[in-house]
Amino acid sequence: MDNAATTPMDEEVVNEMANLMRNSFGNPSSIHALGREARTHIEKSRKKIAEYLSCSPAEIFFTSGGTEADNMAIRCAVEDMGVKRIITTTIEHHAVSHTVEDLWHKNRIRIQFVNVNVQGHVDVHHLETLLQEDDGPTLVSLMHANNEIATMIDLLTVGTLCRKYNAYFHSDTVQTMGHYTINLKEIPIDFVTCSAHKFHGPKGIGFLYINSHVKIKPLITGGSQERNMRAGTENIYGIVGLAKAMEVAYRDLPAHQQHITEVKNYMIKKLREEIPGVDFNGDISDKSLYTVLNVKFPTTPDSEMFLMKLDILGICASGGSACSSGSNVGSHVLAGIKCAGDRPSIRFSFSKYNTKEEVDKVVNVLKGMFEPQVV
Amino acid sequence: MDNAATTPMDEEVVNEMANLMRNSFGNPSSIHALGREARTHIEKSRKKIAEYLSCSPAEIFFTSGGTEADNMAIRCAVEDMGVKRIITTTIEHHAVSHTVEDLWHKNRIRIQFVNVNVQGHVDVHHLETLLQEDDGPTLVSLMHANNEIATMIDLLTVGTLCRKYNAYFHSDTVQTMGHYTINLKEIPIDFVTCSAHKFHGPKGIGFLYINSHVKIKPLITGGSQERNMRAGTENIYGIVGLAKAMEVAYRDLPAHQQHITEVKNYMIKKLREEIPGVDFNGDISDKSLYTVLNVKFPTTPDSEMFLMKLDILGICASGGSACSSGSNVGSHVLAGIKCAGDRPSIRFSFSKYNTKEEVDKVVNVLKGMFEPQVV
Repeated sequence: MDNAATTPMDEEVVNEMANLMRNSFGNPSSIHALGREARTHIEKSRKKIAEYLSCSPAEIFFTSGGTEADNMAIRCAVEDMGVKRIITTTIEHHAVSHTVEDLWHKNRIRIQFVNVNVQGHVDVHHLETLLQEDDGPTLVSLMHANNEIATMIDLLTVGTLCRKYNAYFHSDTVQTMGHYTINLKEIPIDFVTCSAHKFHGPKGIGFLYINSHVKIKPLITGGSQERNMRAGTENIYGIVGLAKAMEVAYRDLPAHQQHITEVKNYMIKKLREEIPGVDFNGDISDKSLYTVLNVKFPTTPDSEMFLMKLDILGICASGGSACSSGSNVGSHVLAGIKCAGDRPSIRFSFSKYNTKEEVDKVVNVLKGMFEPQVV
Repeated sequence: MDNAATTPMDEEVVNEMANLMRNSFGNPSSIHALGREARTHIEKSRKKIAEYLSCSPAEIFFTSGGTEADNMAIRCAVEDMGVKRIITTTIEHHAVSHTVEDLWHKNRIRIQFVNVNVQGHVDVHHLETLLQEDDGPTLVSLMHANNEIATMIDLLTVGTLCRKYNAYFHSDTVQTMGHYTINLKEIPIDFVTCSAHKFHGPKGIGFLYINSHVKIKPLITGGSQERNMRAGTENIYGIVGLAKAMEVAYRDLPAHQQHITEVKNYMIKKLREEIPGVDFNGDISDKSLYTVLNVKFPTTPDSEMFLMKLDILGICASGGSACSSGSNVGSHVLAGIKCAGDRPSIRFSFSKYNTKEEVDKVVNVLKGMFEPQVV
């Protein structure tokens, strides 16, 4: 139940990749037959992805993942588009927040933080006030769905507001790509990002969507790959795996959405029934990210051992983003919404493979942790 | 015969990766059992690679490939180590030359070019003169083996010279990793790079070796992966595939070296016998990169159709680096050594899978192109 960290790969994706690894080995930049064949796989994948997102294939640039894509959008907006101010929140993924901080440390930008409420919802009026303050080159970077507390923004509302004040708009969509229909033709937005392993695709591959009206230069320089925008021999197996994972995801999207939402709501219901005093961080409404549920437990003496105990019992969950779990500090997201206090919080996150039976098992284990122990 | 562009994947590598894709799906940053299992695969791979290169596992940082590794070394040397001058040549791979040029355009560094002779050999005396000129923070970036003309530098000689003048030393070793024994304990060097797909590993994965005495900050920021040096969920399948490819490469290295050298020398001999006026660009001595042979053909009216004709006949070769073949300009390497004139040049590059029979076929086809045509 830690699918926001990563998801198991779909068998269809693995098969397609393994087949390609065995049978296609050209360098897509080579002009001979083997090269052209590899190039065809990449361009077919790009076209397929663009169709799912209602954008042009020329707006999709493959990267090594969501983090590189976020870096590319933010760093190149500052380097090449003259952005001097970044408006963001304190609860973004580290791929965004650490990149923005790095640029601030280097004296390249000013940072302004939009207010978020106790559920993590962005204060859109405050965002408008900030945008009104200054019409200098500005990038707004707000994640589509928060990876820890499931709170979402409305891309259309924020994008429209950004356009009104001539601000560029970047959204880390790593948690929603493959989980929601995203129609980029209808959303005024400059950059969105994707990481394949969040929807049963391979690790090490993702892309940056760059609105065709926006011109940036490459973050990584060298050969002329990705139309001179991202140097380095293309990860062709990863790209094909990404496109396949997207195909599988969007083929059955409504069914997956319904199933996962039911699993999540069932867990909410069971937790409330079985564990007195349980509560939830962030948004649990039907407008929240349906794959994520952040549970706030009653304080217990051994709350620090929580995740470890679950782990011993075969249950995978997370204290926050996997990307920062090595650092052993508390969640910056929960700190940012000032809601958790010192109560132990655990993020459960679901995929199409999770079941209500698993929820029963997990809630039962959790219940056991809160029952008076008979010594 | 275009293995310097990329190589077919080893079956052993594909099997190991496909198996892992099916059976290991944790996020290496997660602290639970699935995460720890994924972490173990990565750290075992890192240890294995470090053993082959006689360095510490803590000096290996996985990247999305050789290009990112070159970017990371050069950009971070300038950003974090105060480098103000880069000494390089005009015949480096674009991953290096375009990166250096980008930093020069941004007014971050001075560039000095070491002389190279008509074979592409670096003039070490000139390098020493340049190093003597100025003792400011300097990075020397010279590729180990040229990917187009096979000319090599002696890493120990250049590294020792750099140390003498307190210059940092980076070498693009993308064409030699997996093809030569490289003992990093004995070579005074700060950065070397690797790309797995150059020795029958997967595309989209490589690493940067950073000498433990050198401190840089990440090029791509976000999560705390790679000990805070390279953010983004690790490409675990790629990393394991890279380590496996290295194992396979070094397991049979002397046999491969001997076989490929024989194939190359056989092709030199056959070309000389069959095509009057044929010559070679760069170095063809036994001190050259044994996988690459750059052939200079006699001028013919339809020399521009050369590669296309070979392609039609099922022979894959290259006019230069694959990375720049899309750009449709002549080779910057051949221009840099001023040796080709307007004679058509083709790079043939070999792997352990090539045979003398293939050479016979290719030379026969080439011979046909130079015979007087009977109308």
